[in-house]
Formats: sequence, structure tokens, C-alpha cells
Amino acid sequence: MVSKLKTGPLGLQSIYFKDAPGLLSWASIAGKKEGEGPLGSYFDEIIDDAAFGQDTWEEGESEFMEAACKLALKKAGLTAKDIRYLYGGDLLGQLIATTFGIKNMEIPFFGLYGACSTMGEALSLASMCLAGGFADNVIATASSHFGGAEKNFRFPLEYGNQRPPYSTWTVTGSGAFVLSRTKGDIVIRGITTGKIKDYGIKDSMNMGASMAPAAASTIYQHFQDFSSTPENYDRIFTGDLGKVGQEILLKLLEENNLDISKQHRDCGIEIFNPDTQNTGCGGSGCGCSAITLAGYITKQMLEGSWKRVLFVPTGALLSTVSFNEGQSIPGIAHAVLFETRKHQ
Amino acid sequence: MVSKLKTGPLGLQSIYFKDAPGLLSWASIAGKKEGEGPLGSYFDEIIDDAAFGQDTWEEGESEFMEAACKLALKKAGLTAKDIRYLYGGDLLGQLIATTFGIKNMEIPFFGLYGACSTMGEALSLASMCLAGGFADNVIATASSHFGGAEKNFRFPLEYGNQRPPYSTWTVTGSGAFVLSRTKGDIVIRGITTGKIKDYGIKDSMNMGASMAPAAASTIYQHFQDFSSTPENYDRIFTGDLGKVGQEILLKLLEENNLDISKQHRDCGIEIFNPDTQNTGCGGSGCGCSAITLAGYITKQMLEGSWKRVLFVPTGALLSTVSFNEGQSIPGIAHAVLFETRKHQ
Repeated sequence: MVSKLKTGPLGLQSIYFKDAPGLLSWASIAGKKEGEGPLGSYFDEIIDDAAFGQDTWEEGESEFMEAACKLALKKAGLTAKDIRYLYGGDLLGQLIATTFGIKNMEIPFFGLYGACSTMGEALSLASMCLAGGFADNVIATASSHFGGAEKNFRFPLEYGNQRPPYSTWTVTGSGAFVLSRTKGDIVIRGITTGKIKDYGIKDSMNMGASMAPAAASTIYQHFQDFSSTPENYDRIFTGDLGKVGQEILLKLLEENNLDISKQHRDCGIEIFNPDTQNTGCGGSGCGCSAITLAGYITKQMLEGSWKRVLFVPTGALLSTVSFNEGQSIPGIAHAVLFETRKHQ
Repeated sequence: MVSKLKTGPLGLQSIYFKDAPGLLSWASIAGKKEGEGPLGSYFDEIIDDAAFGQDTWEEGESEFMEAACKLALKKAGLTAKDIRYLYGGDLLGQLIATTFGIKNMEIPFFGLYGACSTMGEALSLASMCLAGGFADNVIATASSHFGGAEKNFRFPLEYGNQRPPYSTWTVTGSGAFVLSRTKGDIVIRGITTGKIKDYGIKDSMNMGASMAPAAASTIYQHFQDFSSTPENYDRIFTGDLGKVGQEILLKLLEENNLDISKQHRDCGIEIFNPDTQNTGCGGSGCGCSAITLAGYITKQMLEGSWKRVLFVPTGALLSTVSFNEGQSIPGIAHAVLFETRKHQ
């Protein structure tokens, strides 16, 4: 049994929710490659067609998000009219996957961009809204798409570019969560909101290295703010650092006398099998942490295997313009603390 | 004297803040053309160099935002360490203007994308955070840049493309606001959060037409939720509909028996003189409503000319990818209700 965490003070970057909002339902819609990976059996639906029946990858990504939101609503026994706000985002310029994915649901909408940290940002803002008493039910969602992301950030797929071994593979999929002010067996006990960290990395293929300092900063501050230690947690999941980023994260924290090597997992490392799937050092994208949380992590918590999990999606803040103009790639990471309700 | 608005219920899309957060300070940093326009004398600083001393427009836009945030902090007598969260965004893909503009301040950051509605989105989320008791001081900011936006969304400036008369001119500038949980002579009394509205407009030069239905929807719902009428407001400011969008807005509302023609103003119409500045049917961009609020509207309220203003930034949700793939241009609008504190 994990010991109870100290309540408050808020510390420098965190909020502890005394009346913690909960996850009422969730859904994960994953692409073909994700379905063939180690977590494949955990996803609600596997869609073999990358365009999801649409004409383009971008429209396809919208379909993944809409399907995830609708399935989460169905599981909760709710309709879009019951949802006060939708917090969501994706990786594409101007959030077009989200815009066209959610527009027909007609839910008041806050568009978010945190690169691959977006799922953490959405859950953070959604839980603040609920804990503040401003809604009964909200949705938090995020998506990404391999084809759309390669086209947006790197090379056309037809070009067949070589990928360095430290590159990551953008996950195709979307996770959606219906959050409730009072209900749900898994609650959001707190959040630690990230600052932008820039260590001057300029290689857009090496996103693990650009995000690791941000993850280290947020995780370190989380323990400070909650007066907790890694032993108080069953798992600490970063979003998509991959193997290179994980090494840097563990090293940076060790330098600050914090050893999370026992608890640390990375959604990007868990989601693919690099030996058989040719995915470089792991999966990435907003969808990576979103479907790993909606598919895998929540299941372990519901079954009682894990009682307290720190979920820390990580984002690399670049665009092709900033990259081509020679700017560095700063990172950001937003931590969300999940607990099983029984454990309170 | 404007009569007091009914408190609650929340209605379908709005929040009424009983303990209303306030504007502690604000700053507007505007470009040369904006400085030469009708509102020029209201801005804190006019920067003649579009690159603000940097190598690129994008880096220049970051400078505008950083300068606005720093000046607002200075006016409040605060430093970045006193700010719990920063809510901000811009128009560029992956929010690079914001990322590089705010990263050195090291404030926990929520990245937002609402196209030109971003200032309204940032103020909405910031005020929910404060009214929920999760912070004492936060910053809300947004920026846009003519050169950067043309390059991102339309044509290279060097190409010298023709602009149809219904096109708008992206404002170069940034507005920043320090919001306080308890202080400030101007308060945020409520918010009405927008839904995405899509009337099938496909002309990326005609953004007024794509945003007007969203503005009409949000404004109509605001009056429903607050049981108020246009006569209860001194002004109702949309963000950047321009003259074409304004006509459509007024017509759509008239069809719903709502006449806001006396109170309605549009930041995009106010900020330029179309006869002498060749700006089509008005200004646009996140920066347009941001600097009009920070420069002009707040000044009228502080001087007592206006006691209650509904501020409704409007966003056109497109990217070059969605546009080139033949998608429509949906709109969104977020309303923020300002009152002078004396008026409470």
C-alpha cells in the first residue's frame, strides 16, 4: 500500500486537488502498427486504414479523434450535450486535426498546443476546471498521425528518407477521456505544470534529448511540491522520450539525487517493439501518451496493479520554420498525478 | 449607469464569476503601421523595425511578446517569479512565436491555439484558474505578425500578391495582461466559451465571413446565459471580423431578433484607417484584439467612459494544409465580459 501524500501547500508549480476530479470513461483508437505492438491488445479499436476512410492523413487523424471522443462518451452513457468543455489538440499546424475532428460535436472548445505534451496539458486544464467547480463533465483529448506528422515536420513519406537510430516514430491514434467533477474510480489527485526548458538541442530527429531536460525539471519539482519520493509511486510514465531521452532523464535526475529508475517507464518505449517494428528508439506524438494512458495505464490501475501513477507527457516545441531558421528545440512536460479512488 | 447583471445560472456556455478576477496591469507593443493607425496613441510602445532587432519575423514576433509580458510585469511591480501560470499563443504553426518569446521567463506555461480568438481563450482559462483559487497572479498574452502570417498562411511578401478588398491585414504586435485573483480596477465578470461553427466558407482571404457565424453564436448565447440585452453593455467588441464580417454578424443576429448595431465595434475596423493605410476591410490576427484591448479598451474603461464591455475575439481555424486539401474554414469566438470594479 502506497502511503498517502501530504496535502498542500501548492509548492512552486503544483496543485493538489482535495476534491479530486475523476476519469468517468476513456477510449483509445489506434493505428495498424500500434495495434501490432506490445500494447495492441489494450486498445479499444485498431484501424488498419491510415486515412480512416478519408482522402487525406489529416482528415484521417480527425476521424481517429472523433471516434475516440464518441466512444468515450458512449462508455460514459453521455452525449456531447452533457459535456461542458472540450480541451484538445494535436501536432499539426493550427490544430487542424482537432478542429475537424471535434467540430460536429458542438462542444465549447479550448484548443491547446503543447506538442507531444498536449494530453498532459489537456488533463491539467480540464481538472482545474472541474476542481474549480465550473463544470460537471468535460472531455480531454489528443491525437497524432505518422503520415501527417512526417509530412508536417520532416519529409514526404514517398521520399523514403533514412531515419537515424535515435529518431522516434510518430504514433497514429487518439485517446479521449471524459472527466467528472465527482465520479470515477481513477482520480486526478494533482498536477505539476511544466516550464519550457531549452538545452540548445538543434537536431529535429533527436527529440528525446530536447525533451528530457523538461521532463527532469517537472518530475523533480513534482517531488519537491508534493514532498514525496519515487517510492511513493507505482509508476512514473513519461510520454515519448524514447531510449535516448530516458537515459538523459535518469542521468539528470540522478545528478539531483533522485533515482526513478525502478518506477520509470516511457510510453514511447512501451508502445512499439523496436526489434521487429523498425521504430527507432520509440514511439512519439500526442497520440502516443494518450492511447497508452487510455489503453494500458488505466487498465493496470483499474485492476489494482498500480495505485498511484505519475503521467508526464513530454513535448518538443519546434516547427519547420523555427528549425529551418536555426532555432533550438525547447521542451516542455506536464505531470498529472493519478490515484485509484479506493486508495484515498 | 448600466444595471447589474443577473448572477447565474451558468446557462449553456457561460460562467459568471462571483469573485471576479481583475486586470492588475497590461501592456501593448505595436508595429509601425499599427502605430500610424487611429489607435496609435494608445499603445505603450511602437516598434518601427518589423524584425524587432532580430534576424527573422518569427524571432521578431517573439520579441514583441516578450516585451509586452515584461512591460506588464513591470507595471504591476512584479517579476516572472510572482506569476503562477502563463496562458499564451500566436498564429504560427506549433506556436513558435510564443515558445521563443516566453521561454526565458521560466513560468509554468499552457500553450493555446484559437487562431485570432486566442486572446479571448487565454483570458478565459486564466480567469477560471484564478476564480477557482489555483493562483494569485497569472499572465495571458497573444501576438501576431504581418510578415510571419503572410509567409505562414498566404504568399511570400516578395511575391507582391494582389489582395481582394475583403481581405484583412494581420496586425503586428502583442498584448499581455497580468491577472490577479483579487485586485484590479477592471474585472472579468464572466466568460462565454465558443463552439466551432462551420458555414462552409472556403476562401482564405475572406476570414470575416468564416468567423462571423461563430461570433454570432457566442454573442447570442452570451445574452441568453446572462439574461441580458445589448442595452446592458457599453460596447461589444469582436476581434477581427472587418467590415464584411461585421455586416454578416449584424445580419445573423438580427435574424435572431438581436440588434447590437449601436454597441458593436470591431477591433479590426478600429485599428487601421482603410482609406490611407491600404488594409482591406480591417486588421486581423491574435495581436489585433490583444493590443486593442490592452491599448484602447482598457483606457476607456479606466477613464469611466465604458463600464461594461463584452470582448469577443474571433478565430478562423485553417492551415495551409487544410486549405490546400479543400477543407472549409470553420470559426470560433470566445467572449470575455469586462466590468469596472466600481460598477459592481
